[in-house]
Amino acid sequence: MKQKIVLAYSGGLDTSVAVKWLIDKGYDVVACCLDVGEGKDLDIVYQKALDMGAVECHIIDATEEFSDEYVAYAIKGNLMYEGTYPLVSALSRPLISKKLVEIADKTNSVGIAHGCTGKGNDQVRFEVAIKALNPELKVFAPVREWAWSREEEIDYALKHNIPVPIQQDSPYSIDQNLWGRSNECGILEDPYAAPPTDAFDLTNELEDTPNQSEEIILSFEQGLPTALNGENLSLSKLILKLNKIAGKHGIGRIDHVENRLVGIKSREVYETPGAEVIIKAHKALETITLTKDVAHFKPVIEKQFSEQVYNALWFSPLTDSLKVFVDSTQQHVTGEVRIKLYKGNAIVNGRKSPYTLYNEKLATYTKEDAFNQDSAVGFIEIFGLPTQVNSMLHGGYHNE
Amino acid sequence: MKQKIVLAYSGGLDTSVAVKWLIDKGYDVVACCLDVGEGKDLDIVYQKALDMGAVECHIIDATEEFSDEYVAYAIKGNLMYEGTYPLVSALSRPLISKKLVEIADKTNSVGIAHGCTGKGNDQVRFEVAIKALNPELKVFAPVREWAWSREEEIDYALKHNIPVPIQQDSPYSIDQNLWGRSNECGILEDPYAAPPTDAFDLTNELEDTPNQSEEIILSFEQGLPTALNGENLSLSKLILKLNKIAGKHGIGRIDHVENRLVGIKSREVYETPGAEVIIKAHKALETITLTKDVAHFKPVIEKQFSEQVYNALWFSPLTDSLKVFVDSTQQHVTGEVRIKLYKGNAIVNGRKSPYTLYNEKLATYTKEDAFNQDSAVGFIEIFGLPTQVNSMLHGGYHNE
Amino acid sequence: MKQKIVLAYSGGLDTSVAVKWLIDKGYDVVACCLDVGEGKDLDIVYQKALDMGAVECHIIDATEEFSDEYVAYAIKGNLMYEGTYPLVSALSRPLISKKLVEIADKTNSVGIAHGCTGKGNDQVRFEVAIKALNPELKVFAPVREWAWSREEEIDYALKHNIPVPIQQDSPYSIDQNLWGRSNECGILEDPYAAPPTDAFDLTNELEDTPNQSEEIILSFEQGLPTALNGENLSLSKLILKLNKIAGKHGIGRIDHVENRLVGIKSREVYETPGAEVIIKAHKALETITLTKDVAHFKPVIEKQFSEQVYNALWFSPLTDSLKVFVDSTQQHVTGEVRIKLYKGNAIVNGRKSPYTLYNEKLATYTKEDAFNQDSAVGFIEIFGLPTQVNSMLHGGYHNE
Amino acid sequence: MKQKIVLAYSGGLDTSVAVKWLIDKGYDVVACCLDVGEGKDLDIVYQKALDMGAVECHIIDATEEFSDEYVAYAIKGNLMYEGTYPLVSALSRPLISKKLVEIADKTNSVGIAHGCTGKGNDQVRFEVAIKALNPELKVFAPVREWAWSREEEIDYALKHNIPVPIQQDSPYSIDQNLWGRSNECGILEDPYAAPPTDAFDLTNELEDTPNQSEEIILSFEQGLPTALNGENLSLSKLILKLNKIAGKHGIGRIDHVENRLVGIKSREVYETPGAEVIIKAHKALETITLTKDVAHFKPVIEKQFSEQVYNALWFSPLTDSLKVFVDSTQQHVTGEVRIKLYKGNAIVNGRKSPYTLYNEKLATYTKEDAFNQDSAVGFIEIFGLPTQVNSMLHGGYHNE
Repeated sequence: MKQKIVLAYSGGLDTSVAVKWLIDKGYDVVACCLDVGEGKDLDIVYQKALDMGAVECHIIDATEEFSDEYVAYAIKGNLMYEGTYPLVSALSRPLISKKLVEIADKTNSVGIAHGCTGKGNDQVRFEVAIKALNPELKVFAPVREWAWSREEEIDYALKHNIPVPIQQDSPYSIDQNLWGRSNECGILEDPYAAPPTDAFDLTNELEDTPNQSEEIILSFEQGLPTALNGENLSLSKLILKLNKIAGKHGIGRIDHVENRLVGIKSREVYETPGAEVIIKAHKALETITLTKDVAHFKPVIEKQFSEQVYNALWFSPLTDSLKVFVDSTQQHVTGEVRIKLYKGNAIVNGRKSPYTLYNEKLATYTKEDAFNQDSAVGFIEIFGLPTQVNSMLHGGYHNE
Repeated sequence: MKQKIVLAYSGGLDTSVAVKWLIDKGYDVVACCLDVGEGKDLDIVYQKALDMGAVECHIIDATEEFSDEYVAYAIKGNLMYEGTYPLVSALSRPLISKKLVEIADKTNSVGIAHGCTGKGNDQVRFEVAIKALNPELKVFAPVREWAWSREEEIDYALKHNIPVPIQQDSPYSIDQNLWGRSNECGILEDPYAAPPTDAFDLTNELEDTPNQSEEIILSFEQGLPTALNGENLSLSKLILKLNKIAGKHGIGRIDHVENRLVGIKSREVYETPGAEVIIKAHKALETITLTKDVAHFKPVIEKQFSEQVYNALWFSPLTDSLKVFVDSTQQHVTGEVRIKLYKGNAIVNGRKSPYTLYNEKLATYTKEDAFNQDSAVGFIEIFGLPTQVNSMLHGGYHNE
Repeated sequence: MKQKIVLAYSGGLDTSVAVKWLIDKGYDVVACCLDVGEGKDLDIVYQKALDMGAVECHIIDATEEFSDEYVAYAIKGNLMYEGTYPLVSALSRPLISKKLVEIADKTNSVGIAHGCTGKGNDQVRFEVAIKALNPELKVFAPVREWAWSREEEIDYALKHNIPVPIQQDSPYSIDQNLWGRSNECGILEDPYAAPPTDAFDLTNELEDTPNQSEEIILSFEQGLPTALNGENLSLSKLILKLNKIAGKHGIGRIDHVENRLVGIKSREVYETPGAEVIIKAHKALETITLTKDVAHFKPVIEKQFSEQVYNALWFSPLTDSLKVFVDSTQQHVTGEVRIKLYKGNAIVNGRKSPYTLYNEKLATYTKEDAFNQDSAVGFIEIFGLPTQVNSMLHGGYHNE
Repeated sequence: MKQKIVLAYSGGLDTSVAVKWLIDKGYDVVACCLDVGEGKDLDIVYQKALDMGAVECHIIDATEEFSDEYVAYAIKGNLMYEGTYPLVSALSRPLISKKLVEIADKTNSVGIAHGCTGKGNDQVRFEVAIKALNPELKVFAPVREWAWSREEEIDYALKHNIPVPIQQDSPYSIDQNLWGRSNECGILEDPYAAPPTDAFDLTNELEDTPNQSEEIILSFEQGLPTALNGENLSLSKLILKLNKIAGKHGIGRIDHVENRLVGIKSREVYETPGAEVIIKAHKALETITLTKDVAHFKPVIEKQFSEQVYNALWFSPLTDSLKVFVDSTQQHVTGEVRIKLYKGNAIVNGRKSPYTLYNEKLATYTKEDAFNQDSAVGFIEIFGLPTQVNSMLHGGYHNE
């Protein structure tokens, strides 16, 4: 009896070729295809896996788990790698790895194969996650291993009756899930060239967006959006719905040259319409519900958390500790945010909360003022004391 | 002979009343009015100061110094307090204090008076800066000290023949310089209410912006913009010009509930059209010219720098050290950035530099690929080692 | 009926005078005296409070609560303000405040009085903690308010039949609890002068310590010491016992010029024999039980946590979040540490844990070596890639 | 004509074998041996290199450059990896690499060979430094490449007439320079076993140290020690002298399980007598000469700097920026520190500076007190405001 390998199967050329390649190596292939909210037609993928020669094909809808256990932290933690990238693929990789490991365990497979190349982040994310979850499993990276040019790969495909997509030379390499869509490659490789229109799919060109703005209301409970315009929705449904609404208004395009984990700079184009609106709204709600010390320290946690996720360390003790920190800050991040959507802009027009720490009586300049202005004198005297002592010592302030 | 006090004079009601109030206290008042790029009519202010009874009035154009010595760091350091506020007033206060201290020294004055209330940040910024520059000077804060209601102040003004502006009940408290305009107060005090149209002055309503987008090119040298669309401009002229262009497209409105130094949360509305475009472009240029380690650590410096500036500590040894750090990172931040301006959006469409670290040969997926994909195997093995050891110890990864 | 004030009563001159002073102000005084492990004779203090005129006196032994809820975090978080001070008094102030607030609630008192001066940290710690726990309570700081010189205070005491201690001019101001002893003032105010012998009480002079070293074994469970030399002890008992043992060997003297919250530098002498041994042992155990990413990020949390505690913010949402972070890191900090005590030195000679991540097979240079040295080649190629690209761009490395 | 390879030659077995091995590969070997203060007999090494078959041997005394350009930053930056390891070898690797590259350039060599194994940090430090300085050079790591067991290596040596040291089975792997000595391996691999006496060389056993304490005075100028007991000494001479004095008193032993760059934990024993005294004294002097904000932020820089150095990134733009930051903080770190040396303890007994910010008038509790205690009331009111607002909102403070 042959040993089994679980293959993360997408239905595309690379992983279809990988089925044959693994069979050639003497393995039975257990295909596994996950839906994390990208809306692929999984029936077709299922059939194709079997057509390619997989002995089994597992289709798993992980959309809810993805939104509730992964994207939820991207929201509560305002996660943005390099302040810019909402970690679209980086968030799904650990979940996909977890499912692959579960299938491997269930099917007594000896290893897992993924379709990543050798120069991206995703290979690291898959392999480190698998090490974390079951370090006994072997890992195969056929695409990295065979190291074929595009032409050689197509030759192999034709020879093995693997259907080659007609638009085989689509210049893009795309990954998508409910948190967004990433696109790299081809013409994008010149970072001075503007991304072409067809690099985008989830968002309208600004020039094609509605001329009428739209105001939405997002309700949050403990850091997570729970209702859109008053309608309660599960997190995944809310994000998917918001992707449509915000995408229509051209919101959420990101064009970034980022530092990959594997040491190179890469130009990436992302579309994250729902993510942009949700994170903006979430941050706005935090401005009135977090105390100053939390508001000023949480970004340190957020930066580290973003880097952990980007750097393939979702399953790690540090990430667990960052999670409990973030969770503990969200207890009162409950309330409503008004956001105007218009021609690429998501503008927070208002935020309110039953736990608001914004105190009109303290902030006002009217006679309702509850702030004791006299206390400022003592405050400044003590706050300025180190400056004063330093200045007296040096006879004023000199810096040249 | 009476003792002299230098008064930071704006021409408004508060500081006009302060002239009389200081005279009543037995001082000669030396008025001092600075231009930091807000474009006030200083002849009128000059005359008014003397009319109020000031013995002298000094008009100082500090626009160049402001842009070259203060705003330059806001650009090189991407300074944003709480990730949001580009430190408009916070940047000008130390410079104004410096000029006031110079005038005090020149005129043998015994102290300095400012027109700030007792609940804002600016009082702290003036007073701590003055402590730094000349700790021997007395400081007066008449508005904080007299603690009058608006009505009481107007009574005093009428009694002393101080002209009271007709629209005395403008609901806003405004400060402006070349880096932007801040607005607090009045109706803005309800953070769930959208700011009214008349809260803005430098930026068009989005609905009123041109239907035609505009692409501009910003050239940078060592971190600072030096040319706009190929035309070399001094920094201050470039910013002022960009304020107009970007303001026309509705760019640069900020609506933020911020944590003041004096312990309260305050809702602020800012307009910073030029600042938004410049900082976006600057960050984009940094993505291709900074090494990864600098790119990942500089934000730690930027956060601290922003807090120093916000917290009245411009003149401090730590700020000096942060400055040299920031300067040292900008040596190769030279190049050009293409930005599309359209209906509130400033979209970086391209960035290039003679010092670009983006290497197409490494990033490409074509056969020009210079990246050795085999090395990924060893990299992942070592990078994933701590994860693997931890997992082997605990028999997989568990977190519940 | 008079209003009641709860007074934090120590039995010393200041708070004895404060009883009379508060009675003079028209209040009934509810004395409250806490034991947090300093080993004071509380019967004497109780009687003295009543003799001074207090209407009630509450004696509370909070030693266990102090060690389990406060000191426990100092251990798990390796808390050291400015890398040096184990937060002896800073840790006890919030607990004392909590007890005072409880007594105030129970006795229907309208406020709380403490005996701190106006230039230390403790006034802030008491008052901010009380604001956190019951912002309705008034706060009195008699010593700060009366602003007497030592002589004036003694005059008042003599006039009111308050016993003045004979050695009234002890040059030191001391605070003590189970976590250590702090000493400021007098001759210590010259930071170039060595602290005199009589500034210390818990630790032997090095010259007077045993000539025979002693090895102890500390057992930890989830970050806390649970046994000393195999004997299970409650945390408070273990610390008190260790204070004696380590103090005998002259361990735990700290001499530090620290930056107070109120803006001045102050020279402080601490004795923390048990704390030094425990924290050293705890850190050593963490070196084998924390993963590298936790080990490298936890110090960021520890620094912030130390500053929160020092800065009077024990009761704050940020501190709560820091606590859950720290707790979550301690799950596997279980094991044993051998420490040699000798003439001021606490030397960790060994550490072991059932959860050790130190893997002899990976670390060894013998033929049992399980480390794949080939992987280093790929690792270095990718790890060094940003350096290589930067160097190729600039034609080598230049820095002048 | 053969191509030349520069070999970092130590005179030991590994690099002696490497000479032959490189010759076997068809290269001419240019041996290069550096003195960075370890006090080796270089004449012997020189002759041995030629005896082994090297075509040239370069002996370079880099002690001054090492102390002035590398160790100087370890002092000014208080550099300690993981808060514990003063970066002894990590500091010398970049300098040695620099010298090797210079020799390679001078001799027209095509590459550089080092004697590191494949599981340590030093291989990374050499190779990344060489990439930084001259990315065109090939790098050879013979020991990593041949992957022999100790026995195989000795076989090869005997076969090639390479003298094998008699005590070939010394259980230790040692590196030494003027900043200290590191020791790993052998019996040290059990982290619960105490290091044996013969693991140490620079420091006396505590039991063998003098019974008489010794007080020394270190004078600093701008962050660097310039005189010992009043005698002006170059930095390298001062360190070497202090190593002797402090080593005599048993000061500077470090026993640490550290996280290597290559993903494993390793137990290391260091001896750094001079380093410990100097860094303690330097920190003490900083407590009175740095303002609070610098004192609290510099540790963030120090941590990053330490990790850069440990992680092979001495020659990198980030390290350059960290250097200028650190330099800028040292302007006033000038003064004298009294340190008592006694049985393993280096106790700072006093610190003074012409630039001291410690102000006895502010710190004192005598009647010279210049601190305005009234200002504390206003300070606490404002400092405690966020706590008060939070508490009022939530009806007190609750955390469970």
